[in-house]
Amino acid sequence: MGWQSWLDGAAAAREEAGLTRRLRPRGPDDDVVDLAGNDYLGLSRHPEVRRAAADAALLWGAGTGASRLVTGTLTLHGELEAELADWLGQPGALTFSTGYHANLSIVGALADRTAHVISDAHIHASLIDAVRLSRAQLTVVPHNNVAAVHAALAARPGVRSLVLAESVYSVLGDEAPLAELAEVCRAYGALLVVDEAHGVGVHGPGLVHRHGLAGRPHVLVTATLSKSLGSQGGAVLGPRAVLDHLVNTARPFIFDTGLAPASAAAALAAARVARARPDLADTIRARVTGLAHTLDVPAPAGAVLSVPMPSPEAAVGAQADLLTEGVRVGCFRPPSVPDGVSRLRITAGAGVTEEEWERATKAIDSVVGEVR
Amino acid sequence: MGWQSWLDGAAAAREEAGLTRRLRPRGPDDDVVDLAGNDYLGLSRHPEVRRAAADAALLWGAGTGASRLVTGTLTLHGELEAELADWLGQPGALTFSTGYHANLSIVGALADRTAHVISDAHIHASLIDAVRLSRAQLTVVPHNNVAAVHAALAARPGVRSLVLAESVYSVLGDEAPLAELAEVCRAYGALLVVDEAHGVGVHGPGLVHRHGLAGRPHVLVTATLSKSLGSQGGAVLGPRAVLDHLVNTARPFIFDTGLAPASAAAALAAARVARARPDLADTIRARVTGLAHTLDVPAPAGAVLSVPMPSPEAAVGAQADLLTEGVRVGCFRPPSVPDGVSRLRITAGAGVTEEEWERATKAIDSVVGEVR
Ligand SMILES: Cc1ncc(COP(=O)(O)O)c(C=O)c1O
Ligand SMILES: Cc1ncc(COP(=O)(O)O)c(C=O)c1O
Repeated sequence: MGWQSWLDGAAAAREEAGLTRRLRPRGPDDDVVDLAGNDYLGLSRHPEVRRAAADAALLWGAGTGASRLVTGTLTLHGELEAELADWLGQPGALTFSTGYHANLSIVGALADRTAHVISDAHIHASLIDAVRLSRAQLTVVPHNNVAAVHAALAARPGVRSLVLAESVYSVLGDEAPLAELAEVCRAYGALLVVDEAHGVGVHGPGLVHRHGLAGRPHVLVTATLSKSLGSQGGAVLGPRAVLDHLVNTARPFIFDTGLAPASAAAALAAARVARARPDLADTIRARVTGLAHTLDVPAPAGAVLSVPMPSPEAAVGAQADLLTEGVRVGCFRPPSVPDGVSRLRITAGAGVTEEEWERATKAIDSVVGEVR
Repeated sequence: MGWQSWLDGAAAAREEAGLTRRLRPRGPDDDVVDLAGNDYLGLSRHPEVRRAAADAALLWGAGTGASRLVTGTLTLHGELEAELADWLGQPGALTFSTGYHANLSIVGALADRTAHVISDAHIHASLIDAVRLSRAQLTVVPHNNVAAVHAALAARPGVRSLVLAESVYSVLGDEAPLAELAEVCRAYGALLVVDEAHGVGVHGPGLVHRHGLAGRPHVLVTATLSKSLGSQGGAVLGPRAVLDHLVNTARPFIFDTGLAPASAAAALAAARVARARPDLADTIRARVTGLAHTLDVPAPAGAVLSVPMPSPEAAVGAQADLLTEGVRVGCFRPPSVPDGVSRLRITAGAGVTEEEWERATKAIDSVVGEVR
């Protein structure tokens, strides 16, 4: 089959299934209350964060101009890494251009054909790609099933093993059993990689820290600078020996241009604001718990409420109805949901005013009530 | 073997081979003439580019806050994409957070187990990773060998095939036989993906454009915003149907946060400057040709001179000597060179003043002369 007919066929299949995705550009300001994004603390638009980004672009220039290993490492990256490590209670940090790069790098640098990766079934696409790239032996375990992790580790004694989890899962918003995972990893000499993309900021220094696991040499953390820190980029946090190994071997670090000065400076400023303002995370907890109660769904571990809908059409319809009321929420449909259930995805962030939040939740309550 | 001894072993092996890489942070300004980076036109520090980045951070905030498919697509991305497409003579463009993401995406979205990828032996790490991720059947052909591409295509008639090349190769700085590659791809119904990371800007709208191949539906282009455009990010350029396919299926596009406003705005401003100032590319040609003549090496197709050295130690020594003279050049040693020959990598960019260039080339001539 030729390329054109292959592309046409794929497009037709998407159209037929009602799954065609289209980009919908937004302007710098609209009247819509945005409960769809991941800027959980509202820091992307915080005056100090914007200012820091702008000042860095003026001082350093727009880009770093080279790989981190050539001339693309700035003292600014060092400041950001020191701040992140200090905040998260880790011995060190290394920043990347995206959280995706951070995940590709940590797994790719540590795991090879001789290693065994044990991955939770709900893990993020970037970690799935990372495992594929690494060519490691893979065991996918059922979601949040510590016994299955235990069994997988026991099945290959003496093999270097890496267990992958998210502290707060991106789709369902539930929490990993971190303490138990860390314990079983310790018992088997395995490393635990925890993606804190949705944990850092929403839970201050993250759930690894909250569970007293920060700085444990067998517990590594990856994070993104693009959600609670309102910027772009990613980070790996852990022992110096692991970070040195990444610098020397991680292809998406070595063969990529260093993180832009504006993004690095913005993430640094955002981390400082997040540390100085624990009330922002408190606001998230209060909002998410309140809305979960109203909608009669379980309160999630993170900032994102996942509201099951009777069908993909119902989910899309509710999303559209809310938009006409000036409220933007997300919507997950197959194949983007691990269990096939369509959902609204509602971010209970600290970035909207109390009045906007009230208005939005009223609209959500009424629209969701009608559908279910 | 446990993790700690594995990490220790890898570190010791690097140390033993003299290949340990360390990050060397730089400040916002130093007196060194930088001929090591990829900011070929010097646009990262152009006043209009810095200003555009700063203004965008102030207007839009530091990050986009979500995937391009949720609320992370800005009208600003659309402006940048329109500018790039217009400049490069392509029907459309799609931007990514990094050039690495662009390469992972195009190959990952088009190629699957049923496809055949034919890759030049000198292709960039991001494209190698992309092929691995795609699980496509892979044929690696000798560098710039059109007959081998022909043979590989002929060997699997009727299979969807994708040929990967760089317009200017990143390490050796030589040029791909684009016209012949495009012709053989056309004859076999294959797609040609040309990575123009080192071509765009250095050759105005790039070498695909120069060869009259821009807009041909079977010739796709990837580019980075982090070299000649002085910013961060990447792009895929080509027919709308391909871009729509990426929006719907490319995981490093879908599951990644949209490119930061400051980086998008900087790349847009840089593209405009590059278009308005063709003299910048002329300066590069003049400098690179002049220095190649002085050093008695072949003039490269791009902005980067690759100067073979008798040994890895000689390369590192020459690099250090130049640094004490206030000139920073790059250095490639195994395993980062496709042919095992260590080299100095010297960027003949337009971003340094004439006086700095004179001073730097004098120092290079003397240091390289001593070593060889
Ligand atoms: C769990 C998780 N990990 C990693 C990423 C990737 O981070 P980034 O957008 O910074 O590439 C995301 C989302 O984008 C995520 O949800
Ligand atoms: C040929 C080539 N392609 C792609 C890339 C990746 O681009 P980026 O740094 O924007 O990720 C690079 C260098 O970084 C490169 O040299």
